[in-house]
Amino acid sequence: MISSQKSEVGGTRHIYRGWDRNSESNALKLTSGLLRVEPVETEKRITAFIRDYVRTQGAPGVVLGISGGIDSAVSAAVSAKAVGPSRVLGLSMPEVETWDAEDIKDAELVAKTFGITLERIDISPLVRAAFDRISVFDSGDRLANGNVKARMRMVVLYYYANRTRHLVVGSSDKSEFMLGYFTKWGDYCADLSPLTDLYKSQVRQLALHLGVPAKIVEKRSTPNLWPGQTAEEELGLNYDQLDLVLFGLEHSMAAEEIVRELRLSADVVKRVEVRCRASEHKRKPPVTVKLG
Amino acid sequence: MISSQKSEVGGTRHIYRGWDRNSESNALKLTSGLLRVEPVETEKRITAFIRDYVRTQGAPGVVLGISGGIDSAVSAAVSAKAVGPSRVLGLSMPEVETWDAEDIKDAELVAKTFGITLERIDISPLVRAAFDRISVFDSGDRLANGNVKARMRMVVLYYYANRTRHLVVGSSDKSEFMLGYFTKWGDYCADLSPLTDLYKSQVRQLALHLGVPAKIVEKRSTPNLWPGQTAEEELGLNYDQLDLVLFGLEHSMAAEEIVRELRLSADVVKRVEVRCRASEHKRKPPVTVKLG
Repeated sequence: MISSQKSEVGGTRHIYRGWDRNSESNALKLTSGLLRVEPVETEKRITAFIRDYVRTQGAPGVVLGISGGIDSAVSAAVSAKAVGPSRVLGLSMPEVETWDAEDIKDAELVAKTFGITLERIDISPLVRAAFDRISVFDSGDRLANGNVKARMRMVVLYYYANRTRHLVVGSSDKSEFMLGYFTKWGDYCADLSPLTDLYKSQVRQLALHLGVPAKIVEKRSTPNLWPGQTAEEELGLNYDQLDLVLFGLEHSMAAEEIVRELRLSADVVKRVEVRCRASEHKRKPPVTVKLG
Repeated sequence: MISSQKSEVGGTRHIYRGWDRNSESNALKLTSGLLRVEPVETEKRITAFIRDYVRTQGAPGVVLGISGGIDSAVSAAVSAKAVGPSRVLGLSMPEVETWDAEDIKDAELVAKTFGITLERIDISPLVRAAFDRISVFDSGDRLANGNVKARMRMVVLYYYANRTRHLVVGSSDKSEFMLGYFTKWGDYCADLSPLTDLYKSQVRQLALHLGVPAKIVEKRSTPNLWPGQTAEEELGLNYDQLDLVLFGLEHSMAAEEIVRELRLSADVVKRVEVRCRASEHKRKPPVTVKLG
């Protein structure tokens, strides 16, 4: 996995063997090796980014949510390597409806592996207080309910950050980001977001290099908005394929071309494309009207 | 106040008599008439923006927080005019520490004036649930505590929006926006933000034109994060002056020039400038590192 090879394209140093934009033949081939990362270089770039940003902001350290999943494990690892484990605070924020003893143990394992302090805050009372207040609705909308959970985690993280002058590190990866697979004003909210330019399958490669325990790397991704929710099932594709579809869309390949290259059904690719387009509003500040 | 004059500059129709960028003499004079708006044209542009966006998103209506202050009163008015009052839901979200019977009455007055439904939700239990959970800190940080309130209002607004498929309309004006005078991931969060290109003093002009009750137009602005907080006192300038300072900064005037033109102390202008620069992170998505 570790390699010292780097590609230099038009002055921009690439950390993975992606498409060479400046290549004479600009045919984009969606092959399985396309998204292979150079983990040493990737780690170096990401930790330098975190270290520099924390220093320029004059923050004593960073705080981040640790769910027991792979993304937050990698965020914890690069944060600890960037500013030192003693300056990283992890928060485990379980909630009664999606409570998973295994996830809580995995969050503890992450903290132990990378030497950082972990506090556990059960957010159930916050979620319940919200539902009690808003009694005009029945309780049957799992997406709306799940969004409350994600936003409450943000409220708790930022309260810690405000009180300790720490910065909030996010854990969104590029696959989830492009798909809008996050709660608006919820889990994507952070001061710095070191993994947002890495696809999920690339985060996995980096995780192995960083020493994230294998059981966490191999776990299926879930946003934990409701019990049993998994990302790959909802989207009907595993992340290795999905990331190639997303890479193609990001580089302006036509849906038909992606379908042909990856031998996928047109429906699946269309669904991914629609999802990316429909979630545009989640990645941007509120829409406004220019008057002056 | 009403005028049909419009200025056309470089193809962009201006709704106020701002600086003519393309003028041969590009000396910018910060005079009191500079930010006078054309209220008929402004109302037309803003309501068209809201109507179009709500239609393209296929939403049945909009929901917004109504505090009893001028910004949310104007947002409520333009929303009602854009999509019809029956498609606008207002939420009054008081909280025990900053409870003001007059504000609550004013929120009701706004709803009555523009014919929209108003629901009142006391967010105190949500705020208390958060503080009870996060007991590692004393309760003495009013900014951190105030931020929790603003974020809880966002959580409630979006829960309503999710359940009814409505869009959230924000009420941030340009003065507050440039100064970072809002809670990150809190009161600025919305799907559409119709007033963000109007300075506070321009929002006042529009308010009078729209028929917002005078007592609300004349009220001093407060973000209501803690008792007695007012924006003008914190910043040491009234909004008429402040907006001219901001206009100057927005158009790249040097601080010394602004000081000279407005006969203000260098300290005050510097403080505004620093505040704009330091709040840059609040107006942007999380900072990330480009890797690919």
